[in-house]
Amino acid sequence: MSSNPEMNGAESLVRTLIAGGVDVCFANPGTSEMHFVAALDKVEGMRCVLGLFEGVVTGAADGYYRMLQRPAATLLHLGPGLGNGLANLHNAKKAHSGIVNIVGEHATHHMKYDAPLTADIEGVARPMSDWVKTSMSAQAVAADGALAVEAASTPPGQVATLILPADTAWNAGTGVATVRPPPPRKMATDAAIQAAARALAAGDSALLIGGVALRTEALQWAGRIAAKTGCKLLAEYNYARMERGAGRVRAERIPYAVDQALAALKGIKRMVLAGAKPPVSFFAYPNKPSLQAPEDCEFTTLAELGDDLVGSLQALAEALGAGKIVPAYVASLEQPALPTGKFTLDTLDTLGTLVGALMPENAIVIDEAVSSGRGFARFTANTQPHDWIPNTGGSIGFALPVAVGAALACPDRKVIALEGDGSGMYTLQALWTMARENLDVTVVIFANRSYNILRGELNNVGAGAPGVRATDMLTLDRPDLDWLALAKGHGVEAGRANDLDELAVQFKRALARKGPYLIEVWM
Amino acid sequence: MSSNPEMNGAESLVRTLIAGGVDVCFANPGTSEMHFVAALDKVEGMRCVLGLFEGVVTGAADGYYRMLQRPAATLLHLGPGLGNGLANLHNAKKAHSGIVNIVGEHATHHMKYDAPLTADIEGVARPMSDWVKTSMSAQAVAADGALAVEAASTPPGQVATLILPADTAWNAGTGVATVRPPPPRKMATDAAIQAAARALAAGDSALLIGGVALRTEALQWAGRIAAKTGCKLLAEYNYARMERGAGRVRAERIPYAVDQALAALKGIKRMVLAGAKPPVSFFAYPNKPSLQAPEDCEFTTLAELGDDLVGSLQALAEALGAGKIVPAYVASLEQPALPTGKFTLDTLDTLGTLVGALMPENAIVIDEAVSSGRGFARFTANTQPHDWIPNTGGSIGFALPVAVGAALACPDRKVIALEGDGSGMYTLQALWTMARENLDVTVVIFANRSYNILRGELNNVGAGAPGVRATDMLTLDRPDLDWLALAKGHGVEAGRANDLDELAVQFKRALARKGPYLIEVWM
Repeated sequence: MSSNPEMNGAESLVRTLIAGGVDVCFANPGTSEMHFVAALDKVEGMRCVLGLFEGVVTGAADGYYRMLQRPAATLLHLGPGLGNGLANLHNAKKAHSGIVNIVGEHATHHMKYDAPLTADIEGVARPMSDWVKTSMSAQAVAADGALAVEAASTPPGQVATLILPADTAWNAGTGVATVRPPPPRKMATDAAIQAAARALAAGDSALLIGGVALRTEALQWAGRIAAKTGCKLLAEYNYARMERGAGRVRAERIPYAVDQALAALKGIKRMVLAGAKPPVSFFAYPNKPSLQAPEDCEFTTLAELGDDLVGSLQALAEALGAGKIVPAYVASLEQPALPTGKFTLDTLDTLGTLVGALMPENAIVIDEAVSSGRGFARFTANTQPHDWIPNTGGSIGFALPVAVGAALACPDRKVIALEGDGSGMYTLQALWTMARENLDVTVVIFANRSYNILRGELNNVGAGAPGVRATDMLTLDRPDLDWLALAKGHGVEAGRANDLDELAVQFKRALARKGPYLIEVWM
Repeated sequence: MSSNPEMNGAESLVRTLIAGGVDVCFANPGTSEMHFVAALDKVEGMRCVLGLFEGVVTGAADGYYRMLQRPAATLLHLGPGLGNGLANLHNAKKAHSGIVNIVGEHATHHMKYDAPLTADIEGVARPMSDWVKTSMSAQAVAADGALAVEAASTPPGQVATLILPADTAWNAGTGVATVRPPPPRKMATDAAIQAAARALAAGDSALLIGGVALRTEALQWAGRIAAKTGCKLLAEYNYARMERGAGRVRAERIPYAVDQALAALKGIKRMVLAGAKPPVSFFAYPNKPSLQAPEDCEFTTLAELGDDLVGSLQALAEALGAGKIVPAYVASLEQPALPTGKFTLDTLDTLGTLVGALMPENAIVIDEAVSSGRGFARFTANTQPHDWIPNTGGSIGFALPVAVGAALACPDRKVIALEGDGSGMYTLQALWTMARENLDVTVVIFANRSYNILRGELNNVGAGAPGVRATDMLTLDRPDLDWLALAKGHGVEAGRANDLDELAVQFKRALARKGPYLIEVWM
């Protein structure tokens, strides 16, 4: 492209992003990103959303992609700003969410002087990015932006980081660069389909699915395969989003706890993988295996995560003669009575029952309730159809930012963020963005005033019961956090529930409104 | 060392750290760090302080080192936990603060399975660390821990990151490993002393100092050199801590704004560097230079940052025959009247005057007031002796965590954190640690509800006045943050000041107590 003195590099980049379908930008800018910000005024069509901490920004982009399968951009300030966003980029990368990070950098002629904010930005980016590039001139930035969008959109979705030196933003740019459509997702080969069909027909078998195979249409084909072969239908623990609830085929998620996972997979001799990997424990523990399937289990890969999972499962169903049969494992609608009374750490099932009973149709649930919510999936399997988004990468501080992105992506749906108090504290600034954008998010904070999961983990790793000093590292008390005040500080209305009856009142109140509301569940 | 079945790797590491003088650990642990946490119960002598976000943890370690010149440890959870700590490690690295990061990792046999939390931890560490190592066995971990302490203690101070796979913590370790003392700081050579003396004696000269040369003793020698030669005495913009106030020699900090910096350095033909580098602009701007000294200025290095700066300045003073003369630029004590009335964005000088008038003797000031505090240094130069700690690396979210570490390091001194509302939001979780440890910190939040510095920067980079969409990215309003509520949420008492009279009342109240108090300055 030729030089365009009317359009600086920043504007050529913004126009390229919009032309490439990237029309939402979650931002926490600084000096080096000012031309990008200024370009927003000149160009129509980019919705820019401010986060007050970069973990909010990157998590929001993750949530946006998980709902729409379309990348958003982030705008971050040099190496430290990107650093603050890494934890949620880690989760996004593990979920294969497509994201275009735009990271400001010193002007090219200023880099060599080791000014205070100088850092190895590519080095910071690489561990949590699938694609990294520094654009070295205003003439290149539009084309590099197009490459970043293409990288982010490559199935199954990638984290792409484009580093933008300030002078490449302020010098004369080019016209808009063209973004090529992503490569098509590949179908499973005939050989893979036949091998999978043989494995499932042989008995003692399971179909393990992940990625976009956990959406309604693919689940229908998986359910038909299960109805025909009698195989178990399993979901990866580590998935990005599942469509579940009444009327949908139910895939059982492999449990987090190693002993429970081993029990769930016991006796399986053949496992067919569709967008999934052989199941692995979240952490290693002394004298427990890392691989969770039985030692004699044989794996057959039908299709990889980036392949055409719907088409491949359909082809497998048809190869089995199951193309038109009624699927197995279809969830029915069950409306349990509302539980009442106190909640305690030993009766978490009642919390799950209550959430399931009240959840509205089409809700989007972001699940980071950690120890409080371990059983929630079970009690919500037969509620209204909804989407479930777990913390795929295990880096906490996930749910509130992802809720921001999901709510922006789907303004007509209620988002419910189930959040532990420990986890919530990492990225509580997301509450302010919910207030500013009036996002329809109900935040439920399970306030047990403890990193409760770590008490169990201390025991699991063989370190025994905590003494005084270890307990100090596992508790969030002295002082107690006050989530009503934290919500007010960020401009979000809030209420507290001390028992199940109060929780039902609060939950109904939150669901009845259009906008953010926080419930502190005082355990 | 031989194997010690009575002591696992984690315990051998904790004992080695303590034996090496590292007896404070700022921590935000997870599953992979549980054996380290358990070891705290078994071993006396390590004070472990919990932060609810990793940026608090790393910033606290930075503040601790800046006050005591002794490394603290941090305890962080895998790649994402380290990622959350990077921004304040960036500041620490730029300030040459010695820190020993202990980062948990999956057990060595679990790494290959790409479990959800798997990441390239060394890759995350490297950009913000001077030293990185993964310990690969319980037999090696004590010795590796000793190397990490040695690296952190190497002048002028380094960020050392030791990655600790879980099995190296839980398997049988060794005894305690010996930490060797750091190498001595080198004296300036005779040739460098003679060259510096000639440059200063030739006129139109300046002595630019940084690092530990900004402490009382070295400043005395620098003041004698200035008295003898008539040179200007300048401090790097980008310093770690300065001892200043009445009775101390005053070194003028080079201003942040490029035009002001150019004016301050105009006419200087010879610059002698002691622990400093030729001055560089913080950011580049179109048509402004990156290097701030006049083009014909000649630089002479007396001593590098890691050298013996006190001894070198003393030797230079004595070579000039100035070893016993009265220093120049000694600050007198001036007690201005308390300013009264409203404060506005155009009368920030009154805020600086008030802070200077009320600041108690021996206070430690952490300065991240950004645009609100740009002039504070001027109005505090002649107040009671105190320490001034600026944000050395420019990554915001610095002041509150660093205040935690400084207050722990110096429990008998009042810490004053001057903080912008935008900056404060990155690491507000530090307030909770202040409350839990009852740290004697007065937090002053300058709430202008704006990234006000960026309004100026937008203009400085030639992007003009912001329109509606750009303004949205620069303002913290709709809704306003409520810092009284945010403080309450973290368990910290707070008050609001709407004018200078109320600020004086609030500031006196905060200073009179022993423990944390937050003042929201509503601008």
